[in-house]
Amino acid sequence: MLAAHYAGNRTMAVGAAEQAPPGPGQVQIAVAYNGICGTDLHILNGHMDARVATPAVIGHEMSGTIAALGDDVDGWNVGDPVTVMPLAWDGTCPACRAGNSHICQNLDFVGIDSPGALQGRWNVDANLLVPLPASLSLQHAALVEPTAVAVHDVRRAELEKGQKAVVIGGGPIGVLIAAVARSFGGEVVVIELDPKRRKAIADLGYTVLDPRDDTVAWVEEWTGGAGADVVFEVSGAAAAVLGAVDYAKVRGTLVVVAIHPEPRPINLQRVFWRELRLLGARVYQRDDFDTAVALLATGAIPADALITKTVPLHDVQSAFDDLTGGDAMKILIDVQAGQETA
Amino acid sequence: MLAAHYAGNRTMAVGAAEQAPPGPGQVQIAVAYNGICGTDLHILNGHMDARVATPAVIGHEMSGTIAALGDDVDGWNVGDPVTVMPLAWDGTCPACRAGNSHICQNLDFVGIDSPGALQGRWNVDANLLVPLPASLSLQHAALVEPTAVAVHDVRRAELEKGQKAVVIGGGPIGVLIAAVARSFGGEVVVIELDPKRRKAIADLGYTVLDPRDDTVAWVEEWTGGAGADVVFEVSGAAAAVLGAVDYAKVRGTLVVVAIHPEPRPINLQRVFWRELRLLGARVYQRDDFDTAVALLATGAIPADALITKTVPLHDVQSAFDDLTGGDAMKILIDVQAGQETA
Repeated sequence: MLAAHYAGNRTMAVGAAEQAPPGPGQVQIAVAYNGICGTDLHILNGHMDARVATPAVIGHEMSGTIAALGDDVDGWNVGDPVTVMPLAWDGTCPACRAGNSHICQNLDFVGIDSPGALQGRWNVDANLLVPLPASLSLQHAALVEPTAVAVHDVRRAELEKGQKAVVIGGGPIGVLIAAVARSFGGEVVVIELDPKRRKAIADLGYTVLDPRDDTVAWVEEWTGGAGADVVFEVSGAAAAVLGAVDYAKVRGTLVVVAIHPEPRPINLQRVFWRELRLLGARVYQRDDFDTAVALLATGAIPADALITKTVPLHDVQSAFDDLTGGDAMKILIDVQAGQETA
Repeated sequence: MLAAHYAGNRTMAVGAAEQAPPGPGQVQIAVAYNGICGTDLHILNGHMDARVATPAVIGHEMSGTIAALGDDVDGWNVGDPVTVMPLAWDGTCPACRAGNSHICQNLDFVGIDSPGALQGRWNVDANLLVPLPASLSLQHAALVEPTAVAVHDVRRAELEKGQKAVVIGGGPIGVLIAAVARSFGGEVVVIELDPKRRKAIADLGYTVLDPRDDTVAWVEEWTGGAGADVVFEVSGAAAAVLGAVDYAKVRGTLVVVAIHPEPRPINLQRVFWRELRLLGARVYQRDDFDTAVALLATGAIPADALITKTVPLHDVQSAFDDLTGGDAMKILIDVQAGQETA
């Protein structure tokens, strides 16, 4: 089979790899599509070399069908369409014992800490499988994982029907959060610097603001002087963090979705004055995955608009390069392409 | 009567003042004691001159007895011991309409935005009164307001029985938070830089740490590797904010109690990684006041240890100076002293 692996030195290499049978409790998945996400870009750029040992087959936003069953696997059949919730927890740490196994203190993130989906046949523990309905295309199903991130963020915010949300940053996760928030009954405005992205988001029917305009006054007006119920910080920019609290109502919620590698200045005077709530939100829980599947299956997520293009596995390096350039939203790798000749 | 007012230029002036009768809906309180708080120090030092017009009779941590009733006041009698919840809200702003009138967007903080308790007779709206039990001394009752702050902070943290809390900063509010948290069934450690304060807090039966020691390792050990359920940031120090997240468990809570006039760097990577919750907490709600009265009346609050000394009204300037010097915890002004000759 063919597999793509991170080889260090900003390189994704594609080549033949040995195909092992699934172990006990595992299934072997014929991987169909794999989306590239921001974390994968960090890996490519060497930011996570302390965590990721090369060569590393990465990839965790995927869809496929079951190709083979290992011993002791019940409830699954060859041919079942599936995706994977790529979290393996130890079950024994304090976080797991307190019911927060999705952010286990010793979490194995499959596709980062252990081999991922950028390979023709992928053996994974059956307990990580999430079933897909026949009505959901395998291309759209490759968006289940990032959609589950967005579902988790919106749930964590406890956004209620009729509430107003500001999404700072209109990349793939920002758009997914906007779509999920709207499907949950929220009203959404997206703030995005890039004019091409602004147009694309406006074309999806969202109000989009340029952060260089007086967005605080706009939100004040929009909310009748109250401020937004929820603010999602998805941009990763220091200035956005500093300004984010100004959008929030008294007792409003600010969800930190983006990765901020450096400590960021925050206006704690405003946090105090308005009794704001700032929440970290990381990955997802199983319910979030199930909801993500349902939202994609019902068309609530603008999957086609998010998928800029789909390229064969042997073009994986160019896909990473295109994403680094910032022009693309989501690029899918067609992992099936070329496998029959490998 | 005698009154003390902030006269600008770091000066508290004491002099005779006209005694007006209570208006409709008001009572006239014979003020007994008034505690000086950190906000009063900020006023004295001119930090709030944009908000406080001189001459300003300030003071909002008080106790007294009702001396006269205005028209249309029911349910109160001359001689009743009372304190005042010094918040007057407009009832119409978005925060009030959402049930958060205690942090009304146009809040009048009585004693800051309107005249306070550093006067022999104080006319206040009867709906701000909080009854005191006969068993509670009027000196201890002057601690009801800061105790209500601590009750609000601990309630906002949703601290549950058996949970572990770290209190950063062992000043008056830090000690009150520790006492309230313990009375709610929590286990508490206080982190305090000043050795004299450390000794005083240890004498009250609390574990106290020096922030220059490896407090993160200590908390890790104390909590069996989990981290603390709640962290209260009461120090106001930038370094404390940066370090505070390291004490908290997965999905733990960090309450920002102290005033931070400048934006503070926060480790959002940790907030994200552990899905932490950071909460602003400001003033109190009526339930917090009632709980504070009950805790003081039952001796759960170390009132005598907190009250460094009580001085007569004509020594108010020296009381402010002593507090600025940092040696005292809480100084009460005996507002009755000298009134009979005024």
